Amino acid sequence: MIAGGGQPALLRRINESTVLARLHEAGPLRLGQLSDLTALSRQTIAQVVSSLVEAGLVEYIEADQAGRRSPGRPARLVRLRPEAAHVVGIDIGPHRTLVVVADLSGRIVAEDRGDSSRLRRREEMLAHVRTQVRDTLDRGGVPHETVRAVVAGTPGIVEAEHGVVVKAPDMPDWTSIDLADRLRPLFGCPVVVENDVNLAVLAERWHGHGRDADILVALQWGSRVGAGILVGDRLLRGAHGAAGEVGFLPERQGPPIGTASLGPFERRVGTTAIAELARDTASPDDPGIATLTAARDGDPAALEVLDTIAARFVQGLAPLTLILDPDLVVIGGGVVRAGPPLLEALERHLAGRTLVRPALALSTLGDRAVALGAARLALDGVERQLFKAH
Amino acid sequence: MIAGGGQPALLRRINESTVLARLHEAGPLRLGQLSDLTALSRQTIAQVVSSLVEAGLVEYIEADQAGRRSPGRPARLVRLRPEAAHVVGIDIGPHRTLVVVADLSGRIVAEDRGDSSRLRRREEMLAHVRTQVRDTLDRGGVPHETVRAVVAGTPGIVEAEHGVVVKAPDMPDWTSIDLADRLRPLFGCPVVVENDVNLAVLAERWHGHGRDADILVALQWGSRVGAGILVGDRLLRGAHGAAGEVGFLPERQGPPIGTASLGPFERRVGTTAIAELARDTASPDDPGIATLTAARDGDPAALEVLDTIAARFVQGLAPLTLILDPDLVVIGGGVVRAGPPLLEALERHLAGRTLVRPALALSTLGDRAVALGAARLALDGVERQLFKAH
Repeated sequence: MIAGGGQPALLRRINESTVLARLHEAGPLRLGQLSDLTALSRQTIAQVVSSLVEAGLVEYIEADQAGRRSPGRPARLVRLRPEAAHVVGIDIGPHRTLVVVADLSGRIVAEDRGDSSRLRRREEMLAHVRTQVRDTLDRGGVPHETVRAVVAGTPGIVEAEHGVVVKAPDMPDWTSIDLADRLRPLFGCPVVVENDVNLAVLAERWHGHGRDADILVALQWGSRVGAGILVGDRLLRGAHGAAGEVGFLPERQGPPIGTASLGPFERRVGTTAIAELARDTASPDDPGIATLTAARDGDPAALEVLDTIAARFVQGLAPLTLILDPDLVVIGGGVVRAGPPLLEALERHLAGRTLVRPALALSTLGDRAVALGAARLALDGVERQLFKAH
Repeated sequence: MIAGGGQPALLRRINESTVLARLHEAGPLRLGQLSDLTALSRQTIAQVVSSLVEAGLVEYIEADQAGRRSPGRPARLVRLRPEAAHVVGIDIGPHRTLVVVADLSGRIVAEDRGDSSRLRRREEMLAHVRTQVRDTLDRGGVPHETVRAVVAGTPGIVEAEHGVVVKAPDMPDWTSIDLADRLRPLFGCPVVVENDVNLAVLAERWHGHGRDADILVALQWGSRVGAGILVGDRLLRGAHGAAGEVGFLPERQGPPIGTASLGPFERRVGTTAIAELARDTASPDDPGIATLTAARDGDPAALEVLDTIAARFVQGLAPLTLILDPDLVVIGGGVVRAGPPLLEALERHLAGRTLVRPALALSTLGDRAVALGAARLALDGVERQLFKAH
């Protein structure tokens, strides 16, 4: 791009990010190839690579180490060191916390689940998350100083620009917490806080069914219901960070939303409603699980419950698909345990209730969707920082 | 940008569009100012301007004609000729057609309303539109050859990429018509066809209340109901061109949508339902108008009807605002005749039914919204073509 001998700081940074971007796109390259691809002189490339080696961001490898054969003398290749930078994605929920650590290539190098169901005060939760992240990094052999970004997902309405949780009816002592501000000192790197369902839809685009869906909806359906919406590459957060809060879809003749924890719609279709319908009291911490797995296995009584719940769910799914006409709706969360019979029941009840039939799929990401999406958002930030300095 | 002496065709075009873009942004400029702003030499600028003058796109004016005073000798300014290019926006509806003609500056220079209620066959409608556009251009003194783009809005599901009307339950003989293909030979310039409500939201962003609203919804509410949705600068068309078709929101226990012309929601809230509720049979072509104007004037019986309709309408407005959390919802269409009492009734019934209170406004664009939005979309295309050749 821009050649320079003396290389003042800004110019050096631009050249470095140009080289890193080419290596990120193309994989390991020779110095000559880098020179061709960047239009920088061989001499400048050598200088830039040498300073990136010093910073630990790239390294030289032998050509055949990268699985390539050179007909002449063996040439050294330059490659990005994926382990040079890491990101942490955290899912902070009322029952459990999940931490994933990804390297610069997007590979998940460490992961941990924690129990948060007994934490009542925000200080307890923050201390728990801090310890869990440190332990996960240590067990994965990830040096703490390589962590360049942390993203945390949490339920409720999140003012994403400043990382403030405006409203979180499900989380004890979590409403009105300036979460990004509280997490930043724990990690010493940029921290972003985002609504959990918004992160789930990023994960579906990254690792799930939604790779090619332009308008993508991720419906998280467990004890609560919420939707993350991607329009192209843009997360639809809404004017108040409240887009996709379908759990609060009102009952037609019902009372106002009020201050109840559960919204009217999720009260009728959530896993607690499933457990009640089935008189299934086996697992109060994870309600409905027995019924959902029985439905997957073809149990007639459980399938009947599933049918009732699917009919109710379509009363929210129909407006969502009529309004957005999405390319794909991915359903995730606890209900996915019911498997194909759930999809079949939803499609049956949806027939004739929308103008065009939406494509539906069950998420394959399990309970990892939010933490994976958090890691993806963190990687986006690090990639911008490393590869797009200009 | 790029200086050139010999000026091959592409380079000349790039330089011309650069000069046009600066004049479009900044208004009339001296040759020296153009040279400074474009980093093109005085000589190149003189060549470019001379060829643009020849093409009729710019002209020289005296400095004080543009209201500017020069302390030294009077210098000539170069300015865009707004009359050098025109666009036509057409609203093709089942009852009337509306044509607006705008010049390059966005000024509406001609406008006409036509009656389409007696046209039954597509050929009749096409001939009617063709004659109306020609007459409007003639009456406005607009040379036909200056028309650079035509956009037509029509109800129904429109496959915007190819301009095919997939489904138009309201329009006789209009479903499955390749409308752009049929209109193109009538005008001899690029023609785009778009869903009418999608155009209305562009008009609200351009000339209405929605100038600063990032997520903007235009709800057209007359005998039918539909929503146009802008997410930033992107029109949310949907995977099948069916986004925002809220008129088809299903009844909770009602029958499937089927093949009826009206959708379940619009059947309950449209102006025909208003007329039925009020036993107002005065105006079958424009139902409900007597009740709506009576409500605006404070008539108690009409206000009661308005209250019932507002309560029903909120059953669709609540899901829309819960899902999108828009910055602003502008309500347009026939119901706007009820004025402030309509807004008041909607806000009263919406209270407690959404998590965050959406901003509502009544459209000020009257029945011109679709045609204005069509002209705006056509201008976008012409501006891209003239100002962004590079």
